[in-house]
Amino acid sequence: MTIDANPASDSPRRGSKQGQQTLAAILTAACKIASEEGLEQLSMRRLAAAVGISKSGLYAHFTSKEELQLATIAHVREVFEANVAATLGSGSDSGLAALLDRWLSFFERKKFPGGCFLIVSAVEFATRQGPVAAALTEALDREIAVLETAVEAANQTGELHPQRDPGQTAFELHSILMNTHALSQVKRDPAVFDRARTAIHTLLGELDHPPTSKRGTRP
Amino acid sequence: MTIDANPASDSPRRGSKQGQQTLAAILTAACKIASEEGLEQLSMRRLAAAVGISKSGLYAHFTSKEELQLATIAHVREVFEANVAATLGSGSDSGLAALLDRWLSFFERKKFPGGCFLIVSAVEFATRQGPVAAALTEALDREIAVLETAVEAANQTGELHPQRDPGQTAFELHSILMNTHALSQVKRDPAVFDRARTAIHTLLGELDHPPTSKRGTRP
Repeated sequence: MTIDANPASDSPRRGSKQGQQTLAAILTAACKIASEEGLEQLSMRRLAAAVGISKSGLYAHFTSKEELQLATIAHVREVFEANVAATLGSGSDSGLAALLDRWLSFFERKKFPGGCFLIVSAVEFATRQGPVAAALTEALDREIAVLETAVEAANQTGELHPQRDPGQTAFELHSILMNTHALSQVKRDPAVFDRARTAIHTLLGELDHPPTSKRGTRP
Repeated sequence: MTIDANPASDSPRRGSKQGQQTLAAILTAACKIASEEGLEQLSMRRLAAAVGISKSGLYAHFTSKEELQLATIAHVREVFEANVAATLGSGSDSGLAALLDRWLSFFERKKFPGGCFLIVSAVEFATRQGPVAAALTEALDREIAVLETAVEAANQTGELHPQRDPGQTAFELHSILMNTHALSQVKRDPAVFDRARTAIHTLLGELDHPPTSKRGTRP
């Protein structure tokens, strides 16, 4: 690899270790902007200022706003996979209840300051065509598929008894998760997580346990 | 009232009948833009072009982008009240099931091309301060209050038997409605309304009727 002698570039080359660190900082800042202001507000100028590099330095990593938006979606998906979906089907945290607890904790820890922007951006881009809208739809499909897979597994292991329709149950769980995310962003009231846990408990336990009056308690 | 002799204005005065018609056209176009592209994309220039009047004509009705955003939120709330909340507590359509059916029909009829933008905009504005963010939060509070009131009434009339916790049940119903709205926008798959009706049926009927395997059927 040759040394980059271009004086106009203040960004390390993409392949280098320093380049990877810069890229990580760019993606973290991009997720912050996208989650606080929306994916469409994620301009090269705004992002360069947030990271503290020049616009030309940013162009060493992304050649267009669209490429940047796609990389930001890919990054938030990686964070979701690592934090929520990762241990699905393996080890002691393999069950449906554990998955849902990780998902809610992911929202509670506010991994991204303005929240996970996927569903909001997906609605924002719903009337548009193109790779960004397609990537958002794909990310949403993955979320629902993770839930369906977990319900199917819970049917098999006996965690869900009697068995439930995976597609319908995934929709109902996704509803609770998405509304919890939206309301926790807007209302900033942590009680919404108690409501979510009660709703999930009722949904998963309704057929073999009578509903209790306890709310928001965690094992 | 004096005649507006300002030659720069091509918009009728606010109080006149023609002025009211222009205002109605402006608000309809504003809701369309806000629901398709987001409330923040609702610029005076973009809206003037959509309605076919000059920017100065638009300024006869709204003196700022913020005033326009607030009027657009107020308009979508009026449409919600007229189409969804109106008959709550009166006549044959007074019950909780009827309310939920009107709400889903409101989404299905796509009253606004890109959908009702309230919850998406509320999340978009969640990290901001100011009257627009406050108006969005208030609109969301009203949605949840309508559901709570309907659950309380259903407890009283015996429509819900046994009685349910109004706050918790309102949260769960709101979850289904918001996710249905989001997914119907993104996926354009009408089957999501079947899922929503099944979820609502299970939620409201779970305690006194056994779940059935029928899906998406309407009475």
